[in-house]
Amino acid sequence: MNFKIAIIGTGNVSWHLASAFEDAGHEITEIYGRDIDKAELWTERVYQGEATDSLDFTDSQAEIFVLAVSDSAISDIADQIILPEDSILVHTSGSVPLEVLGYSSAAYTGIFYPLQTFTKGKEIDFHQVPILLESDDSDTLRKLKKLARSISPLQYVVKSKDRLALHIAAVFASNFTNHMVRIAEELMNRQGLDFEMLKPLIIESMTKTLELGAKRAQTGPAKREDMDTLENHHRFLAFNENIAEIYRVVSQDIIDSN
Amino acid sequence: MNFKIAIIGTGNVSWHLASAFEDAGHEITEIYGRDIDKAELWTERVYQGEATDSLDFTDSQAEIFVLAVSDSAISDIADQIILPEDSILVHTSGSVPLEVLGYSSAAYTGIFYPLQTFTKGKEIDFHQVPILLESDDSDTLRKLKKLARSISPLQYVVKSKDRLALHIAAVFASNFTNHMVRIAEELMNRQGLDFEMLKPLIIESMTKTLELGAKRAQTGPAKREDMDTLENHHRFLAFNENIAEIYRVVSQDIIDSN
Repeated sequence: MNFKIAIIGTGNVSWHLASAFEDAGHEITEIYGRDIDKAELWTERVYQGEATDSLDFTDSQAEIFVLAVSDSAISDIADQIILPEDSILVHTSGSVPLEVLGYSSAAYTGIFYPLQTFTKGKEIDFHQVPILLESDDSDTLRKLKKLARSISPLQYVVKSKDRLALHIAAVFASNFTNHMVRIAEELMNRQGLDFEMLKPLIIESMTKTLELGAKRAQTGPAKREDMDTLENHHRFLAFNENIAEIYRVVSQDIIDSN
Repeated sequence: MNFKIAIIGTGNVSWHLASAFEDAGHEITEIYGRDIDKAELWTERVYQGEATDSLDFTDSQAEIFVLAVSDSAISDIADQIILPEDSILVHTSGSVPLEVLGYSSAAYTGIFYPLQTFTKGKEIDFHQVPILLESDDSDTLRKLKKLARSISPLQYVVKSKDRLALHIAAVFASNFTNHMVRIAEELMNRQGLDFEMLKPLIIESMTKTLELGAKRAQTGPAKREDMDTLENHHRFLAFNENIAEIYRVVSQDIIDSN
């Protein structure tokens, strides 16, 4: 079952989703961009769909409208967009509740949230991307499941309440792991040491974390409750209050979860 | 140039190093364990070397003695060990200064620190392991470089002062990234959500971090300075003071380094 889909937005998620939908045989009818030039660039790359900078979709053939815009723009666009009868409006955000689509002209609403980090120009294998779905309407949910299944074997129905927890977990698992590496990089640079030295360790640790589970994989001074080393490290970090505080609270939590 | 090497200790580092030395054609003369049974198990697996529970190495043929024991045991063993003339004593720790070997009976001392996380039973490709070296004696340093080069193409001479910074950086890059994933796991479990959902995100984020550098790779609410989301997340985490505090200080540091 193929769908006619309009994509609202010209960011990374929009681009990756449009490509994946097209590869799966769906038809992209329109791509909306506030900046029409950007939308046209998109339609050239995706090969299908008409570029538009109008939110009036009265005459669109699409049945599913995918709002792939920044979190803060979702409710504004949802309020403005004019949709044909019986159409489904979904957004793609992990942190915006379904309710913000409630005042739109859409007959049905839902969430189609690909749980992945997207980078411009970097291919994503959608078969590895969990798609998190939500809708109050069972028929809509069925259609979203079909759409999700056509691009990924991993679909989960997740309620808004759980999606918040999941988004916070994703912040720890993705943004915060990244920031820990960033601090490591800063410490190395500050000391004139080559950050490359740490890469094999980072790769092996993360592999271990995912293989053994984070609890079993843990090592290091906090895990060993080696207070002398912890204090020594904390003292060394006195030049940067933030980093010293992060060292303290994360070490404490490792100790407390021993 | 092959060396005769005695290994002190029967932990993970000892095991991985002994195997790597043997594969590189060096001769393991003895393996010391406080628990002789454990040392014997080791010698059976490494195929070479005599198991011993005595620290009297007067009659040993080894010229390099590798102290691969826990940080807290290093100075005690260094003080007790009786070494043949002209021998080199090294320890393998990232956080213990060279000076603790100063009171030993060794003619020369040094550090031979493989910067990696070792897990029992999990093979390590030593060609991916940076070996950090230190010694006050240039001839000893030359020998340690040769020994390191025989098991890994990555060798660095790092002074104790820099090794401390490096060890702290490694704690952030390895232990703390692991702990961020652990918290993510807890949040998912608490909500009855399948942690598997997050694995593709974790793998893709870490790949991105290492490819683009952590600064460019960063995304998420703190990076966007999306205060509503940050506050919302912080409120959600109120059930666990430690985790809420970690969320706050790490987010703040992401904002401050924007």
